Amino acid sequence: MFKYRLLTPGPTPVPEETLLELARPVPHHRTAEAREILAEVVAGLQYVLQTSSDVLPLTCSGTGAMEAALIHAAPRGAKAICLVAGKFGERWHKLWRAFGVESVAVTVPPGEVVTPEQLEQSLQAHPDAIAVCVVHSETSTGVKHDLKALGALVARTQAVFVVDAVSSAGALELRMDDWHIDFLATGSQKALMLPPGLAFVAVSEKGWQAASRHQPPTFYFDLRKAREKIREHDTPFTPAHTLLRALRRSLERIRREGIENIWRRQARIALACRAGVQALGLELFARVPAEGLTAVKVPASVDGQELLRRLEKHYGIKLAGGQDQLKGKIFRIAHMGYIDFFDVLAAIAAIELTLRDMGFPVTPGAGVAAAQKAYAEAPA
Amino acid sequence: MFKYRLLTPGPTPVPEETLLELARPVPHHRTAEAREILAEVVAGLQYVLQTSSDVLPLTCSGTGAMEAALIHAAPRGAKAICLVAGKFGERWHKLWRAFGVESVAVTVPPGEVVTPEQLEQSLQAHPDAIAVCVVHSETSTGVKHDLKALGALVARTQAVFVVDAVSSAGALELRMDDWHIDFLATGSQKALMLPPGLAFVAVSEKGWQAASRHQPPTFYFDLRKAREKIREHDTPFTPAHTLLRALRRSLERIRREGIENIWRRQARIALACRAGVQALGLELFARVPAEGLTAVKVPASVDGQELLRRLEKHYGIKLAGGQDQLKGKIFRIAHMGYIDFFDVLAAIAAIELTLRDMGFPVTPGAGVAAAQKAYAEAPA
Repeated sequence: MFKYRLLTPGPTPVPEETLLELARPVPHHRTAEAREILAEVVAGLQYVLQTSSDVLPLTCSGTGAMEAALIHAAPRGAKAICLVAGKFGERWHKLWRAFGVESVAVTVPPGEVVTPEQLEQSLQAHPDAIAVCVVHSETSTGVKHDLKALGALVARTQAVFVVDAVSSAGALELRMDDWHIDFLATGSQKALMLPPGLAFVAVSEKGWQAASRHQPPTFYFDLRKAREKIREHDTPFTPAHTLLRALRRSLERIRREGIENIWRRQARIALACRAGVQALGLELFARVPAEGLTAVKVPASVDGQELLRRLEKHYGIKLAGGQDQLKGKIFRIAHMGYIDFFDVLAAIAAIELTLRDMGFPVTPGAGVAAAQKAYAEAPA
Repeated sequence: MFKYRLLTPGPTPVPEETLLELARPVPHHRTAEAREILAEVVAGLQYVLQTSSDVLPLTCSGTGAMEAALIHAAPRGAKAICLVAGKFGERWHKLWRAFGVESVAVTVPPGEVVTPEQLEQSLQAHPDAIAVCVVHSETSTGVKHDLKALGALVARTQAVFVVDAVSSAGALELRMDDWHIDFLATGSQKALMLPPGLAFVAVSEKGWQAASRHQPPTFYFDLRKAREKIREHDTPFTPAHTLLRALRRSLERIRREGIENIWRRQARIALACRAGVQALGLELFARVPAEGLTAVKVPASVDGQELLRRLEKHYGIKLAGGQDQLKGKIFRIAHMGYIDFFDVLAAIAAIELTLRDMGFPVTPGAGVAAAQKAYAEAPA
């Protein structure tokens, strides 16, 4: 018997107290209590995102939230710059185009990040760009963009800075206001410790100004209507309000620990995880890794999909593989949200056992010892 | 002590077995098991809607599903006819216009329905209309449109028939294929016995043909992409998959009882409810009432909002009031989904007690006796 351990970068495990909240009877959503819950959830999200801007809960996936952000950021016919470091950057590039926005892609190979220098060049080449779009933590490759540096560049221009924080909010240092983020989208099923079903968009003053210049092609994702309603602690349409009620529990947990403590803990676990896999003779994939997950190259002699299958079947460890062209070439260990150091240690132990079973040479204990040592020696 | 009884027309109570499913740990959503669940859920929904068409689960509210249906049904610049018998009909009329579709409204006063004759006239006056949109059960007033007759008229034209079945699917007789419905949208939180968070769109062959003639302004709500994915039992974006897993339980319950049995049971409870409130000296609001809820006029001598407040505070009975201009003028008792005859009997008993407390003359026992008699004498 092994317990089932979900260490995928979305969905992630949900704390038991949050799960139990989901099993409570359904209340009505147009009541004083529901408004109080919504107000608490919004305040909790503002804390997580370090912003005083409006945070708007939407009933949709992270892609829906990014669509809402993009269509308010730039109208049909406008030009945007899209920093592409993997599958999700590519998706937003396609999304811009689906809405008739000319998206200039600054693309780097998988595992790399777009640097501030590259953005600067693109901004100079395209002074008419009115939006810049980037994925903070690019889940498909495990890299992290330097939002602080990128945001400072965008802030000097007319363009709004649109950030996908789906797998970073609540895991990586993220300061919406200080970093000049104008549209920030995130989802419920990563470090916010909830099942999928909710997503959130936060909009700065510069963002609202950009949105006021055109009529976005939407009814459901109309953020201006959502803003009017949220100021009365309400939503334009029936929200997934039992998920909101449950989110309150997860946000309480975040507040108890403190967001900066969580960022530090994430960084420490990430460090330990990486030490562990490297001690097994494996190579990291991301050049600038995000703290929420670790992407690892599959050695040439190992069948990557078989490795994942065995990890799940024999040891109950569910990791994620690579997507699209990275399928079989990398695997990804998530350590964001309700995943602790010992879960990660279990994953490393299972990877070690499985690699051994598959004939890949490993020194028994090397991975877990290295992870434990790195954890112990890292700043608390 | 009184138990809390939620008898609002959305959200409605959720069966305990479904709630418990929501508290189970979060699995991954790109697995064989998740695909199996999705396939079962789609088959269950096809059964509820009596259709062999594609049924596409979307993570959004009912409004999102209607938006998805409308933008595929007609492009910007086209003309549509919108039958308006209340707040939701008005919303779809506005939605058409938000997307640049010329919406011709056929509007009737609250409590009335648009008749087939009225639609026929409108179709004759607007032979260039390419879509007709109607709410099956207009929750704001409690009326039911005659979809069978309306659908037969639309089927003779080039127009597609777009139906809001949010508060009818699973409660009222509804036969998508036989009644020539081309786009059907419904939500999770009414008779399907789930919390809000999921919605569904089903599309006929004629509907897909209409959708193929233009590029709908969306990325998230792209139904053609959703159709491709659903055929592999998958979704384009992370779905609210723990809600889907829970929906399986509620759909199993529907299948065990049999959809036609449920329609009959709903009709019987509706009959009993109406006999009960009329025996209290109250008047029904809807001229052609939908089986899922009963809208009741508030007597001139009674404060409608105070009535609702007291029902909830003293007896734990949560009913819905009127919306917008009907606020304080009507109240609505839902009896769809996981609400049985005895819950409705409790509501009538509580209304009787509360009216008496408020000085409205009632004969003690008259309401419950009439409801019980009507229930006993109605065809099983």
